[in-house]
Amino acid sequence: MQTLQEKASEWSGVSQNDAFAIDDTNLYEKLGHQTFINLSTNFYNRVYDDEEEWFRSIFANSKKEDAIQNQYEFFIQRMGGPPLFSQRRGHPALIGRHRPFPVTHQAAERWLHHMQEALDTTKDIDSDSKTKMMNFFRHTAFFLVAGDELKNPKQAIPCKHAA
Amino acid sequence: MQTLQEKASEWSGVSQNDAFAIDDTNLYEKLGHQTFINLSTNFYNRVYDDEEEWFRSIFANSKKEDAIQNQYEFFIQRMGGPPLFSQRRGHPALIGRHRPFPVTHQAAERWLHHMQEALDTTKDIDSDSKTKMMNFFRHTAFFLVAGDELKNPKQAIPCKHAA
Repeated sequence: MQTLQEKASEWSGVSQNDAFAIDDTNLYEKLGHQTFINLSTNFYNRVYDDEEEWFRSIFANSKKEDAIQNQYEFFIQRMGGPPLFSQRRGHPALIGRHRPFPVTHQAAERWLHHMQEALDTTKDIDSDSKTKMMNFFRHTAFFLVAGDELKNPKQAIPCKHAA
Repeated sequence: MQTLQEKASEWSGVSQNDAFAIDDTNLYEKLGHQTFINLSTNFYNRVYDDEEEWFRSIFANSKKEDAIQNQYEFFIQRMGGPPLFSQRRGHPALIGRHRPFPVTHQAAERWLHHMQEALDTTKDIDSDSKTKMMNFFRHTAFFLVAGDELKNPKQAIPCKHAA
């Protein structure tokens, strides 16, 4: 049986090593606190304005300000900064916290499309950091697709709801 | 609706602040690499020898050596050391990775019983570090109980399997 990280590598085309090259440098110290806030704001502005209604609707029950803060606090914590996310919300628990959402291959690609544009239009992100972050995001997005599929194991006995 | 971290705090009796006081000092640098290996080895020796068959059986499909390595690599990464866990297995994704296991209140208490004994009998763990780690473990154990309950939401429509 393929592990989560094997599926993530196969589907994303990003090796485990490249995905976690974010740990080779302290990206938080390199880019600075405000850059992470700017990146997440830029990203969610795109998401909440997405012309693709199926994707925009995934976020319909979340406030944009909360989505932005949750994201940049996680990025800051994971990329060498203070543990802001855990202090406020506990473990990242990425698969568990994405359980309410339909994390499909198509949704992963749409998320990554907006993130690439956000990275390209946020100032003060050098190209080496951009490559590292995009590899991390791409691998993580498909790690979550793999995690989402655990919800509906193909081996499950089909079940009929009583009328 | 209570959040995961609110449930974790209520059930564990450990505040969010106390749980993440592990981030106030670099426990990896303070205790050293080998101490984490010793702690996890001590812990799983107890678990795999548990006289309580219901608890021991939760681990029946995992090799002890793998359980030990997965645990100390996660602890090392989370407590200020190199990101060994992610390099090998990807995101910790604690709730997702515990999905196959019955993480009940009773199982959390049994896990914590063995961990307290392991902490008390592993050399070179000073009492301040022990308190911080135990608060983190206690909060995390009940965070996972809260995550486990997401699997069986009470609102779910009951379902009958076809004969």
